[in-house]
Amino acid sequence: MASDVTFDFERQQRIGLSEAVFCEGKSPAQIGEIIGLSRARATPLLLTRLTSDALAALAADDQAALDYDPRSRTAILGPWLAPDGEPLVAVVTAGTSDLPVAREAIRTLAFYDVAAREIADVGVAGLWRILAQEEALRRHPVVIVVAGMEGALFSVVAGMVGGLVVAVPTSTGYGVARGGRTALHAALASCAPGLVTVNIDNGYGAACAAIRALSLHARPGAKAPRG
Amino acid sequence: MASDVTFDFERQQRIGLSEAVFCEGKSPAQIGEIIGLSRARATPLLLTRLTSDALAALAADDQAALDYDPRSRTAILGPWLAPDGEPLVAVVTAGTSDLPVAREAIRTLAFYDVAAREIADVGVAGLWRILAQEEALRRHPVVIVVAGMEGALFSVVAGMVGGLVVAVPTSTGYGVARGGRTALHAALASCAPGLVTVNIDNGYGAACAAIRALSLHARPGAKAPRG
Amino acid sequence: MASDVTFDFERQQRIGLSEAVFCEGKSPAQIGEIIGLSRARATPLLLTRLTSDALAALAADDQAALDYDPRSRTAILGPWLAPDGEPLVAVVTAGTSDLPVAREAIRTLAFYDVAAREIADVGVAGLWRILAQEEALRRHPVVIVVAGMEGALFSVVAGMVGGLVVAVPTSTGYGVARGGRTALHAALASCAPGLVTVNIDNGYGAACAAIRALSLHARPGAKAPRG
Amino acid sequence: MASDVTFDFERQQRIGLSEAVFCEGKSPAQIGEIIGLSRARATPLLLTRLTSDALAALAADDQAALDYDPRSRTAILGPWLAPDGEPLVAVVTAGTSDLPVAREAIRTLAFYDVAAREIADVGVAGLWRILAQEEALRRHPVVIVVAGMEGALFSVVAGMVGGLVVAVPTSTGYGVARGGRTALHAALASCAPGLVTVNIDNGYGAACAAIRALSLHARPGAKAPRG
Amino acid sequence: MASDVTFDFERQQRIGLSEAVFCEGKSPAQIGEIIGLSRARATPLLLTRLTSDALAALAADDQAALDYDPRSRTAILGPWLAPDGEPLVAVVTAGTSDLPVAREAIRTLAFYDVAAREIADVGVAGLWRILAQEEALRRHPVVIVVAGMEGALFSVVAGMVGGLVVAVPTSTGYGVARGGRTALHAALASCAPGLVTVNIDNGYGAACAAIRALSLHARPGAKAPRG
Amino acid sequence: MASDVTFDFERQQRIGLSEAVFCEGKSPAQIGEIIGLSRARATPLLLTRLTSDALAALAADDQAALDYDPRSRTAILGPWLAPDGEPLVAVVTAGTSDLPVAREAIRTLAFYDVAAREIADVGVAGLWRILAQEEALRRHPVVIVVAGMEGALFSVVAGMVGGLVVAVPTSTGYGVARGGRTALHAALASCAPGLVTVNIDNGYGAACAAIRALSLHARPGAKAPRG
Amino acid sequence: MASDVTFDFERQQRIGLSEAVFCEGKSPAQIGEIIGLSRARATPLLLTRLTSDALAALAADDQAALDYDPRSRTAILGPWLAPDGEPLVAVVTAGTSDLPVAREAIRTLAFYDVAAREIADVGVAGLWRILAQEEALRRHPVVIVVAGMEGALFSVVAGMVGGLVVAVPTSTGYGVARGGRTALHAALASCAPGLVTVNIDNGYGAACAAIRALSLHARPGAKAPRG
Amino acid sequence: MASDVTFDFERQQRIGLSEAVFCEGKSPAQIGEIIGLSRARATPLLLTRLTSDALAALAADDQAALDYDPRSRTAILGPWLAPDGEPLVAVVTAGTSDLPVAREAIRTLAFYDVAAREIADVGVAGLWRILAQEEALRRHPVVIVVAGMEGALFSVVAGMVGGLVVAVPTSTGYGVARGGRTALHAALASCAPGLVTVNIDNGYGAACAAIRALSLHARPGAKAPRG
Repeated sequence: MASDVTFDFERQQRIGLSEAVFCEGKSPAQIGEIIGLSRARATPLLLTRLTSDALAALAADDQAALDYDPRSRTAILGPWLAPDGEPLVAVVTAGTSDLPVAREAIRTLAFYDVAAREIADVGVAGLWRILAQEEALRRHPVVIVVAGMEGALFSVVAGMVGGLVVAVPTSTGYGVARGGRTALHAALASCAPGLVTVNIDNGYGAACAAIRALSLHARPGAKAPRG
Repeated sequence: MASDVTFDFERQQRIGLSEAVFCEGKSPAQIGEIIGLSRARATPLLLTRLTSDALAALAADDQAALDYDPRSRTAILGPWLAPDGEPLVAVVTAGTSDLPVAREAIRTLAFYDVAAREIADVGVAGLWRILAQEEALRRHPVVIVVAGMEGALFSVVAGMVGGLVVAVPTSTGYGVARGGRTALHAALASCAPGLVTVNIDNGYGAACAAIRALSLHARPGAKAPRG
Repeated sequence: MASDVTFDFERQQRIGLSEAVFCEGKSPAQIGEIIGLSRARATPLLLTRLTSDALAALAADDQAALDYDPRSRTAILGPWLAPDGEPLVAVVTAGTSDLPVAREAIRTLAFYDVAAREIADVGVAGLWRILAQEEALRRHPVVIVVAGMEGALFSVVAGMVGGLVVAVPTSTGYGVARGGRTALHAALASCAPGLVTVNIDNGYGAACAAIRALSLHARPGAKAPRG
Repeated sequence: MASDVTFDFERQQRIGLSEAVFCEGKSPAQIGEIIGLSRARATPLLLTRLTSDALAALAADDQAALDYDPRSRTAILGPWLAPDGEPLVAVVTAGTSDLPVAREAIRTLAFYDVAAREIADVGVAGLWRILAQEEALRRHPVVIVVAGMEGALFSVVAGMVGGLVVAVPTSTGYGVARGGRTALHAALASCAPGLVTVNIDNGYGAACAAIRALSLHARPGAKAPRG
Repeated sequence: MASDVTFDFERQQRIGLSEAVFCEGKSPAQIGEIIGLSRARATPLLLTRLTSDALAALAADDQAALDYDPRSRTAILGPWLAPDGEPLVAVVTAGTSDLPVAREAIRTLAFYDVAAREIADVGVAGLWRILAQEEALRRHPVVIVVAGMEGALFSVVAGMVGGLVVAVPTSTGYGVARGGRTALHAALASCAPGLVTVNIDNGYGAACAAIRALSLHARPGAKAPRG
Repeated sequence: MASDVTFDFERQQRIGLSEAVFCEGKSPAQIGEIIGLSRARATPLLLTRLTSDALAALAADDQAALDYDPRSRTAILGPWLAPDGEPLVAVVTAGTSDLPVAREAIRTLAFYDVAAREIADVGVAGLWRILAQEEALRRHPVVIVVAGMEGALFSVVAGMVGGLVVAVPTSTGYGVARGGRTALHAALASCAPGLVTVNIDNGYGAACAAIRALSLHARPGAKAPRG
Repeated sequence: MASDVTFDFERQQRIGLSEAVFCEGKSPAQIGEIIGLSRARATPLLLTRLTSDALAALAADDQAALDYDPRSRTAILGPWLAPDGEPLVAVVTAGTSDLPVAREAIRTLAFYDVAAREIADVGVAGLWRILAQEEALRRHPVVIVVAGMEGALFSVVAGMVGGLVVAVPTSTGYGVARGGRTALHAALASCAPGLVTVNIDNGYGAACAAIRALSLHARPGAKAPRG
Repeated sequence: MASDVTFDFERQQRIGLSEAVFCEGKSPAQIGEIIGLSRARATPLLLTRLTSDALAALAADDQAALDYDPRSRTAILGPWLAPDGEPLVAVVTAGTSDLPVAREAIRTLAFYDVAAREIADVGVAGLWRILAQEEALRRHPVVIVVAGMEGALFSVVAGMVGGLVVAVPTSTGYGVARGGRTALHAALASCAPGLVTVNIDNGYGAACAAIRALSLHARPGAKAPRG
């Protein structure tokens, strides 16, 4: 029987983003096969939604080759260096429960050598918190906003700054907020113009959108991500 | 066959709110019967969701007896005087499309002799608009917030003031906002503590909640919480 | 990397309600950081949705500093005294499964020094149970009704008393009632005027709404409606 | 091409209920064909959801052969006599907007020679109205309850009487009540034991269920439960 | 603090059905309190949704007093004798996975001394199975049909027999059938006249409806419809 | 500005089905442009969802070139001859309201020269109607079943015959059946093996699926399964 | 009490597909009873959704009689031989997480002696992967496409090939994709003509549809459409 | 009573996008008031969702001052010049019914002096159509994809190009596609990395997102839109 995997190694060249491995629902053997293919080609690889248990089920030398971050549940197969430039992206969260998703975005950006600034726990119930960050936010060409519950922070930020604002609704919450539909719909129905959104809990996707946008000025002349 | 109507004339004495007539789905004959019963008792009566067409289908003397307001689609059967005191309730709207619902609340309050202040079109996409009203809002023991789309204004207001904040989600909007579920869920999932909500487009209900709350101080034993 | 927490200590002064800690989805380290900040300021703090397991994961001296109530899953960081005045709020439940949510409301009220009377297990299938409480209910300026399943109790109570009635739908139930949407919609669609609601299982929010309403009489200019 | 219709004339003999014609979505030609088949066999026929416009589109002699009732939108092709016995079924409505559905049930019962008592506009917001009918309700072996909005009346009635209680949720209402799902779910999730329901606005179906139940005593072996 | 329980011991006299104990979501202490109250009064008691684990958590003498049936997860506190008459109710299931719900109905009927006949695993994919039971079904004044997945069996049975047919949708199934909404909607939208339904997995409720219907002939004035 | 249309004339050669024109939401100018392109190439063309009003808005010579059928709302631009062979497809409907969708399927088949047999109004409430057609159905390699409401007919037919059975749920119905989701879910959750479905009201799609299946035997290597 | 099982052994003769055992929700005793009946008749039997744990709970000799495949969670009770002919069905998957469902389809086909070709991990994000398979796909009269997430692969494949294309949406995914509704709706709403679908995760059903379609040429009168 | 309007004239300076007027749900008087305010300030203004009827209801001199485009239902109050540079944005549509939404995006871009290229009717059912545009698409830093039905085009385009890809789901379609939820979910659940989406039918919002992204390279140095 044929291999389970038809990896899209051409993706990096085609669209500037390499195929990442979404680990939920994949067996250790399947994850291991992809790591093996990447190691054989010496190609960097990003793994997302990799729990500690799933990591521990990999072969020891695969584990050793990975840079693992438990808070974001991401792993990076190098060679890879953390970015050290000015942060081009601000990653804002409404509450502390939104942090794992925000960290997934930050790690994805770092994989592509884009530095980010984290601004945590500034939900609108205490509006002074986000107002205090207005000037800081305006210095970043892309702002990623991570929020669950009613997602009011998306509109407030998009009404403040002129850069690209990407909403990441999170599944944080209970009752009508459970699962993230309320926050997602808040992003889509926002009264602030030009706000865009990605799927619930998709910090990875928001970071990829930022990469796409940040490459714009390069057409012609943009710098390619290092990743 | 028996009458179509068993009107709850005791309601005013029982709970301080009289039965109003929700006119959608009622025939002119049914509305006319209730007006007749009220006129016979010389009891004031509030009619809501009364379109101009439905008004025109009533008997001429019933029409003449009504104080009709087309913007709120309400009619009042008097005797009745507009309130002239200090406004106890602020009614805030996010956009101009929310005004008919806000006006239904204001007319209902007026029926019960409670004055209200309208603050229109202060959605969060231009946050300065609501920030400029912060002090004004804090002077009202009850604030009714009327908003459609993503309903971010509910949380922003409830995070600003300590009075009772009642959300009225509206069916304004399109796509995921159509019908008002997104705004309703935003009110329910709000990160601001103690925000309450009524049904979509229910300006009447929000006003009744305000009446209930404003009657509180008249009860023996009420005192300020220590917290 | 910056702190995970931007606590809103100004909230008490701004709106009369302090920021509480919703513990679901927060790590012990994050909860511990907030307790530490509060202890350093000697500020009282309310924690909700704190399971016994989450409590046990806190530092020993933090645990010792908390007044923990397992039935409501709340903890209070003092100094704090149980309220001893006349109960201003009645908390009514439809069934015994609704009690944990009701107790969350009662503990939140107690945190703000407001006494409450619990009236348990009076669902409408045996209507005499709530009818027997009618006079008792009318003595309270605020009534919180906690019910799952079809939520018929909300309308029955709101039709009985003239005070502010706050519905708390619960996720109790199975089939179409699972998760609480049916009870929530019953509260929103109620035929009784002026009923308001909070999110499913949000006993904390209902108590905060009561606090907001009970503070009304303290504001200059409040008076009884004429209606 | 074959006929559009394969009418189930055997149904009356098989299950004691004849096939009725649900007129929504049928063309005048299709309705006319079924009337023609019935007239040829001299078989009584019930037509439901027949608007005045649809009636007017039928052939003149078909119109003349029908007993049409505009409030219930039903027509009966006779021979047929209105029932004159004691009412076996009580049909209760929560509000005046629920009357067309209630009348569809009453007309269907009448088609099968079962008399019914209508008790209108007794929703739970004014609980005295239904309490005043308790004794009257207990005299009927079947009670049909017709209610929209939050449907609290279903549970209240089913907790009062021991006969078969059939809920008919109606599409009356707005916001979360629009279309009748809230009332339907209230019937299904009721805390009162043994309440059954039919589809939204299906007065016809509730009447048929009553016919099925009322035929029970005619079967050999039926007896009262001991419980 | 008051008792958690306000048991409705009057229900049996009022509506012929005693209050049962739905054990999901109740603590052992709460269940034990109700058993204690019933034992003190020597009143029979039915407990539903009682898992083996919940049973084991009760006091030993309470356990000993109960007649427990693990397949239906019901327990009966006697004195009680199994019914021995002719079965008045047929309980039909579409598949073997529907049996626990069917058994809950059968045990509830038995608690009220009504015998039932079980006809298992006769879903419509092999239509001969239900056709072979047609004559048997027609001998029962009430037929309870228990089905998950697409619920086609409800309509097929209701088109076959003239007695009262009560649908019990089950949560059996996956994909769009998960949770039972598809089967529930099939029952509600049935093309067969007079089919009624109860909540998903509510075998207890269907049995109670049968008890209500079977008591009909005992009421003065009941007669067969002419139709 | 470029043309509104990029017509896929290659589709016929690529997959054996030509691109049809779904007319809902297209302007007369857009429809006219496609007709013009087809006439210029002398390519047959099928138009679906073409109302009489939309037809009347086309240019007179375009109208004259079309073979229009109002019941199915389809038009065919020829040259084209009605099929005259043995019917290979049976098209079964549950009720008379399902006929327009069934006729869309039959016309689409005819466009591809495949004859079909229509079997109308054989819903399961009168089961003898479909049982009487069992032998006839078994003679057709493909059976298309068109049903709204609860869609029980899908499972009954798929349990009877061994050919390919394609369900077409219709939007016929009210309450929970409105819009066709209930019938659609019944098709998907069917207990009969190998039933497939298309979108609600998509008679055209079901016919295309039949064309795809009927072409199978023409492919080298097809054989009967052993099973 | 009667047996839990009324097995449809006639199904194979009636429709060419034998009844399979869907093991989710069945007890080991129930599964064992069906295996026993089949062994007594020496009839082959397919079991689906049989987890390793459920297998281990069966009697030892029943386990020994089964050919178990853990990846598809299927077991076959023989006599049975793997198919060795040319593959008539292509089974395509969008991602590696879709493989268990694809394997259920392949095993079901094998049970009926139909060989299949698996083409794995060719989702549209890297379109070259499916384009590279276009010629291979066109050689198969039936193509089963297994995809979760947004299900774009269904339309792409159905636009490429003229054989019967059966979509199997999978529950793979998170956020709005969780549970498979998004992929299911993509299949139903596809712009490619004649695509059909089965329930979410129903690899078994897709295989049965293929069997139904592949049997077509064996019927008298089948011919290629002219279109 | 205060004005209905609190226009956010500061928005252009704050975020580079001026407040547009969404005309649905606004009265002619309200629209006229905003036009008047803008004319008084000589500020350009964009109006969206302005039907021909709504236009005709405006004052004659307001109408004369507007550049109205019926296909996109937009109007521009100048001074304003159509853009004449290289197109920076490609706007791709799946079908001809998606054009009004696409044109709304193009007009919004033009208001901000950004030229766009329209590529129409290239849905994936005929994949060659979009493949033929691959090189053209790659020349644009932003690609807006407008699609209804199953929305497969979003993923195909996002897998092809490295620029920012913004999905605009449309409400085009029927059955499960009606209203646009299926296409919206397809965009959110896409397997292509970094795809972002806006609300259903929100061509205006997609254009604003493009403006935000295109301003990025200017930080520092980006050119301000002319609008």
